[in-house]
Amino acid sequence: MRKKVEKPKKNRNLQKTRAEILEAAFGEVFTRGFQGVSVDDIVAKTNLTKGAFYHQFPTKLDLGYSLVEEVIQPMTYSRWIEPLKKYENPLQGILDQLKQLIGKAHPVHLQYGCPLNNLVQEMAPQDSIFKEKLATALHNWIEGIEKELNRGKQNGFIRPEVDTRQVAHFVVMAHEGFYGMLKGLNDPKAFQALYNSIEKYFETIKNI
Amino acid sequence: MRKKVEKPKKNRNLQKTRAEILEAAFGEVFTRGFQGVSVDDIVAKTNLTKGAFYHQFPTKLDLGYSLVEEVIQPMTYSRWIEPLKKYENPLQGILDQLKQLIGKAHPVHLQYGCPLNNLVQEMAPQDSIFKEKLATALHNWIEGIEKELNRGKQNGFIRPEVDTRQVAHFVVMAHEGFYGMLKGLNDPKAFQALYNSIEKYFETIKNI
Repeated sequence: MRKKVEKPKKNRNLQKTRAEILEAAFGEVFTRGFQGVSVDDIVAKTNLTKGAFYHQFPTKLDLGYSLVEEVIQPMTYSRWIEPLKKYENPLQGILDQLKQLIGKAHPVHLQYGCPLNNLVQEMAPQDSIFKEKLATALHNWIEGIEKELNRGKQNGFIRPEVDTRQVAHFVVMAHEGFYGMLKGLNDPKAFQALYNSIEKYFETIKNI
Repeated sequence: MRKKVEKPKKNRNLQKTRAEILEAAFGEVFTRGFQGVSVDDIVAKTNLTKGAFYHQFPTKLDLGYSLVEEVIQPMTYSRWIEPLKKYENPLQGILDQLKQLIGKAHPVHLQYGCPLNNLVQEMAPQDSIFKEKLATALHNWIEGIEKELNRGKQNGFIRPEVDTRQVAHFVVMAHEGFYGMLKGLNDPKAFQALYNSIEKYFETIKNI
């Protein structure tokens, strides 16, 4: 009996440990970069031992891969794709989300940029598995946007001849570009300039 | 007499040393990130001693600031602004440069992204002086593009009501976004998708 009860508990604990490490690592990597953070730094932010860390993630790179797959990908989905589903017109949804999540974000948050973009810029050239995981995250984002745009096209908000895959590429590029620029510019007016341009671009694809 | 001859020679040598260090550092930082490279790594890529390095750059951060001001800023100017001057229509110049420098670039080069964007993403949140230097580099780029767009407006290629500052912001964002995306995606078709969208955006501002 004991064994049967213990096993699921152990699994639950392992999952809790994993979640605790990933949460701590996300914050550290987001603010200091992947190469700027050591396993010791991450362990110090948890109540765990270094042994518990290595039990979950044999190397720091393994942790990085899991950060992309288990934290950043679901986060991208829930911030940038899920909210579009409540809009009849996804173009309006994309503009509203940009305003909400970037335009109204506190400068302290914006100074760290986008967790996915940061890792792409820092780690894609350093490690081929990292690059593969990051490319998958970007592709899933593009595909998610494309799907919403296709729905918008079916609902008559987007011109029938528009290549929604192409627009989805551009939309994701613009999100990463917005974050990247706002991180580099000490200029609160920059968001509006960028926003107005993407709004104008949408004019070229929307059904009138 | 000897002293008078020696002094300019010493200055020339110091300048040569500085250039040698900056060149080596640029390559290392471009391919491995600022935090991923040590002073030792950089010195090893030169024929100089560590003493010669520290004589030029008291700290690694000082080297980083000089990389932005003495290497990356002039490079940005000569790659993305200077070539526009030979175009009557700067919008065409911007599109041609994107095709030339990104669309036709070898994938090996694109995998490392844009030297300026990389440093912005990595170092802007880490150090306020770095951020200031990087913001200046971005602002100079935006201003350079704005100036060319104003010329294009005067020549009748851009609609009179267009806010050229805003367009310049968007153009620089798109450059950084292009580099950022291509670095993350293993997809040679991505450039065309992005390029077509910026071309469409230009349709909204050009004089017909």
